[in-house]
Amino acid sequence: RNYFKIAVLPGDGIGPEVIRESIKILDVIAEVFQCQFQFEYGSIGAEAIFKTGDPLPEETLKICKESDAVLFGAIGDPAFDNNPEAKVRPEQGLLKLRKELGLFANIRPLQTYPSLIEKSPLKREVIEGADIQIFRELVSGIYFGEKFTDPEGSYAYDICQYSREDITPIAHMAFKEAQKRRKKLTLIDKANVLDTSRLWRKVCQEIAPEYPDVQLDYMFVDNAAMQLILNPKQFDVILTENMFGDIISDEASVIGGSIGLLPSASIGEKNALFEPIHGSYPQAKGKGIANPVASILSVAMMLDHLQLHQAADKLRQSVEHAIENKYVTIDLNTKQHYSTGEVGSFIADYI
Amino acid sequence: RNYFKIAVLPGDGIGPEVIRESIKILDVIAEVFQCQFQFEYGSIGAEAIFKTGDPLPEETLKICKESDAVLFGAIGDPAFDNNPEAKVRPEQGLLKLRKELGLFANIRPLQTYPSLIEKSPLKREVIEGADIQIFRELVSGIYFGEKFTDPEGSYAYDICQYSREDITPIAHMAFKEAQKRRKKLTLIDKANVLDTSRLWRKVCQEIAPEYPDVQLDYMFVDNAAMQLILNPKQFDVILTENMFGDIISDEASVIGGSIGLLPSASIGEKNALFEPIHGSYPQAKGKGIANPVASILSVAMMLDHLQLHQAADKLRQSVEHAIENKYVTIDLNTKQHYSTGEVGSFIADYI
Ligand SMILES: CC(C)[C@H](C(=O)O)[C@@H](O)C(=O)O
Ligand SMILES: CC(C)[C@H](C(=O)O)[C@@H](O)C(=O)O
Repeated sequence: RNYFKIAVLPGDGIGPEVIRESIKILDVIAEVFQCQFQFEYGSIGAEAIFKTGDPLPEETLKICKESDAVLFGAIGDPAFDNNPEAKVRPEQGLLKLRKELGLFANIRPLQTYPSLIEKSPLKREVIEGADIQIFRELVSGIYFGEKFTDPEGSYAYDICQYSREDITPIAHMAFKEAQKRRKKLTLIDKANVLDTSRLWRKVCQEIAPEYPDVQLDYMFVDNAAMQLILNPKQFDVILTENMFGDIISDEASVIGGSIGLLPSASIGEKNALFEPIHGSYPQAKGKGIANPVASILSVAMMLDHLQLHQAADKLRQSVEHAIENKYVTIDLNTKQHYSTGEVGSFIADYI
Repeated sequence: RNYFKIAVLPGDGIGPEVIRESIKILDVIAEVFQCQFQFEYGSIGAEAIFKTGDPLPEETLKICKESDAVLFGAIGDPAFDNNPEAKVRPEQGLLKLRKELGLFANIRPLQTYPSLIEKSPLKREVIEGADIQIFRELVSGIYFGEKFTDPEGSYAYDICQYSREDITPIAHMAFKEAQKRRKKLTLIDKANVLDTSRLWRKVCQEIAPEYPDVQLDYMFVDNAAMQLILNPKQFDVILTENMFGDIISDEASVIGGSIGLLPSASIGEKNALFEPIHGSYPQAKGKGIANPVASILSVAMMLDHLQLHQAADKLRQSVEHAIENKYVTIDLNTKQHYSTGEVGSFIADYI
């Protein structure tokens, strides 16, 4: 195949700015690698609420369902965060989209860039050579369990729930990935306290014999949050539930040098969505300072997903070339830096 | 007052070893500062399950309720962690104790020791001068909500719940502490997803006007997990719910140089419990290599709680003296190191 329908959801904050660069890249890829991308744009998040009242309009969902892949920017707006009374929230759009598309596995690769290692708050010897792949369950857990606040606002609950069916597919995925890598899988949970965590251990224990070459370890989430910083090189593939994955993977981004570099893929049975792990970063909106690399590397993950491996590899090389040549945004080099658009063009030109 | 009843619960793993040093310290304190401690020992955790079948025997609870303070070692045993079927678990003992004593606030001070700063995985300039006080809610949230696993073990849930009454007392405590410090309070939550987090924001927003000199900020837990490593100096007092507090405070321990140094206090209306933040560390059990400092500094927090401030200050100086003179266990210096008992005695002798 060389024709692909891509749903493009720029979203809020710096989302539209980084997505613009990703499209620039895809236009060049199409030319160089002889393929065609048809882009269908959709509204999502705060931006969609302002326009339609709905954080995920029907039309957007339709575009996504009919696409070969979804390219997503960012979501969130402080106007909603600081208002506990708001009934509709931007994030609901993304959560509903994940659920509707059945994107059960969020995958985040973490590597260090040799030329950026000095930027990390962690010492060189701690992170050099670290190479982690995180699998976060994305469509269940406390994010999607029943929620309740009483009318007087004096009591609230959120239910964290998991069934065997929620855990099995992502567990297999993580085991398979470990087989391709260093053959170590760490399940992060809180099995000394939570019933859901004990279910995760049980399911993983049962699956483990199918992957006799993979070593399965367990780690409590509190300890893991510490170990990730003390000794990140001990990890190969990490598997964890939705909420712990949210925390652990943002934390782990410090190993990668900058959150502005880190891509993610959210994979389902039929659909897949690609997004930078950074948020909408509203303070930077419209200033041309946002780092487009995380979104551009998400495009590389998308190209791999579409089986355009050559294009994906070339794109990753181009990003590395830009970083090695210090063609970066202000977050990576305060002295000499380029705008979002300049960095995007530099990478595109090299392809 | 100069007579105090102290409940002593050594617990599992290295608990008994570090508690032994704390008692050594208290014996010296009693002599030097003219006071008397009556120690009542109780069983808890795996150790108690093996003896009585119950992780918190009635007798232990009684001793604690009648005490002026509880000195706690550690809890947990891998025999239970790796068995998802176990019906009784060591941790239940500690959780029940927290609940029964109403220990609603877990307080963890984090500072860097000048002589240990090089030991941290973080760069000197990132952590030097960091000084954070964490307030973690300890008797509600997902730890204490209803839990369920169906008989076939194919589905499970854990309920995270909060009422206004759970949040208000610890919020006031955190605001008051911020007033005494740098006047900045950060509430860590996931208010873009969880109803319980929105309740936390609401209650804190309502209380804030009573503390006009304190600046109240909000931060999502995923971002906070990253910011703690990127720029720990931005934090003064942190307030958070039970599960997030568990993760965040273990993570933050890397700032303090070593988890073997960090004490905590769990405060209730009538009772208080003091424990190192490290766990039972079963691999080190009986080897005489455990670092007793976290437990000894928990004793210092206990002395402050008993209004024995002079003794507490002297004890902290003695610990600093030991560390500055490299009188430390193997976790802090692999080349020249001393046993648990030697470090305890060195600190005791200096008092
Ligand atoms: C925006 C928010 C709902 C989302 C999440 O918590 O999943 C984000 O933090 C992420 O990790 O993709
Ligand atoms: C032992 C465990 C139940 C406990 C907790 O999760 O609260 C521990 O990690 C702690 O932080 O005191």
